[in-house]
Amino acid sequence: MEDVIIIGGGAAGLAAALYCARFTLRTTVIAKEYGGTGNIAHLVDNWIGEPGITGSDLMQKFIAHVKQYKVPLVEDEVLSVSKKGKSFVVKTKKKSYATKTVLFTNGMTHRKLSVSGEQEFSGKGVHYCYVCDGSLYGKKTVAVIGGSDAAALGTIFLSGYAKKVYLIYRGDKLRAEPISAKKVYSLKNVEVIHNANVVEVYGDKFVRGIKLDTKKNIVLDGIFIEIGHIPLVDLAKKLKVRVDDHGFIAVDKDQNTNMKGVFAAGDISNATSLKQFITSASEGSIAAQTIYHYLQKH
Amino acid sequence: MEDVIIIGGGAAGLAAALYCARFTLRTTVIAKEYGGTGNIAHLVDNWIGEPGITGSDLMQKFIAHVKQYKVPLVEDEVLSVSKKGKSFVVKTKKKSYATKTVLFTNGMTHRKLSVSGEQEFSGKGVHYCYVCDGSLYGKKTVAVIGGSDAAALGTIFLSGYAKKVYLIYRGDKLRAEPISAKKVYSLKNVEVIHNANVVEVYGDKFVRGIKLDTKKNIVLDGIFIEIGHIPLVDLAKKLKVRVDDHGFIAVDKDQNTNMKGVFAAGDISNATSLKQFITSASEGSIAAQTIYHYLQKH
Repeated sequence: MEDVIIIGGGAAGLAAALYCARFTLRTTVIAKEYGGTGNIAHLVDNWIGEPGITGSDLMQKFIAHVKQYKVPLVEDEVLSVSKKGKSFVVKTKKKSYATKTVLFTNGMTHRKLSVSGEQEFSGKGVHYCYVCDGSLYGKKTVAVIGGSDAAALGTIFLSGYAKKVYLIYRGDKLRAEPISAKKVYSLKNVEVIHNANVVEVYGDKFVRGIKLDTKKNIVLDGIFIEIGHIPLVDLAKKLKVRVDDHGFIAVDKDQNTNMKGVFAAGDISNATSLKQFITSASEGSIAAQTIYHYLQKH
Repeated sequence: MEDVIIIGGGAAGLAAALYCARFTLRTTVIAKEYGGTGNIAHLVDNWIGEPGITGSDLMQKFIAHVKQYKVPLVEDEVLSVSKKGKSFVVKTKKKSYATKTVLFTNGMTHRKLSVSGEQEFSGKGVHYCYVCDGSLYGKKTVAVIGGSDAAALGTIFLSGYAKKVYLIYRGDKLRAEPISAKKVYSLKNVEVIHNANVVEVYGDKFVRGIKLDTKKNIVLDGIFIEIGHIPLVDLAKKLKVRVDDHGFIAVDKDQNTNMKGVFAAGDISNATSLKQFITSASEGSIAAQTIYHYLQKH
């Protein structure tokens, strides 16, 4: 029987694997793909000590480090997690694992606009994380899509870099916190366009512009889609692990969920609103310590 | 006026500086020495992606990254922090700074035994962090000094690596949680020595043994001193920032202290019991986002 099965192979899962190995736990990681959303980050300048590394290169460094500890990194898809007495059964496409604990680190996806060109230009002008990629757009023209607090905060953030920021929202009143909305309207280099939907992203090698359903065409260099996240909690929910109002797995500061023996770390958890490599890796490390202590006591 | 003054130049302070710069905040870091306790870690194998780097080399990578963002890293000693209206005055040996917010990241020191040889062999067999350095002692003989839960957990942790672990405690009953103490007593490669104090650490290039006040001499390869931490909270306490029962600055999950405009991250805060580079850097990054949001709203 495993001490812990880590589901997910991104920053949280890999950091958890490193620390679980250091805590001498019998550990297996299962993921469909290693690197997670990190792989699609074309330029990471927020992993301290590695200026300008690509997401894919950073993830390769993480994977290589974990492999030094001989932790099995299984490429497989988890189909279900179920309780069996005090332990758990993790069923994948290929086999079935018995384990004393389970750590969910299988992350989230960004909600997509689902319009023409969005996928084609992903990472080439289409972005889903302004904290990650906003600084690339110094003196450029960008658009933020959305009306939530995240969209407003993204607009404010980008206005510090970009020459001009469009905020495009389908509704007639921003849903953002009033103070954020007020700030957005006060910024000279921000133009808010209400009651409009993006219908197409176009470009050549990179994004060159977007078309709205109001027939308006906006020439720009980048767009930031801030219309929400989809945490990948199906497996956890079927196990009756509690999620918060936004759909993220609810954890305490030690990464415990509501269920004994089940832990969560990284983007899938609600530990922090700052969804970054550094926070995910930290949460994974903390989860490893918590699991270690849990196993000492049970 | 600065948007933020970061006090402390270790992993938390440097990561906070990186993120503050990315959030386009006007930022100055003030520290007596850059790198913090990181500098004395001779081998770091828990910073994911950098197997086997020295603490000093890792800190140099952090510093170089922050310097790319042109954040001033001032070498100076902070003498006091005081409130002035809604902002703060940070007085150092060399000058005085006005700032809208203050981030404490000035860490902690490990409580010392204060015996002959302790300082001389620090990092050469004398350690203060079993999670950091325990894995160096595979098949070796080590001692843990202390009787708290940390000492017991350190003993259990080390028993997974070492051939033999002595736990040396001055009292006649471990203060550790009963379940941890019970585990310690049950381990075949652990010997608990009660009512004894270390009076000398001796060796040549590395530690070779310790002498106890019971006249006993123990030949060993390493000792782990787990008798507590001293968070460096004098400046914060004078400002009336709240500390918890263990003396660490009390923070919420966004690194807010009880005082508006004052934040804390890293070892000085009580965000997590896992005091590591990765957790400190994560907390510094989260603090930067929180400070950014705070400044947007005030």
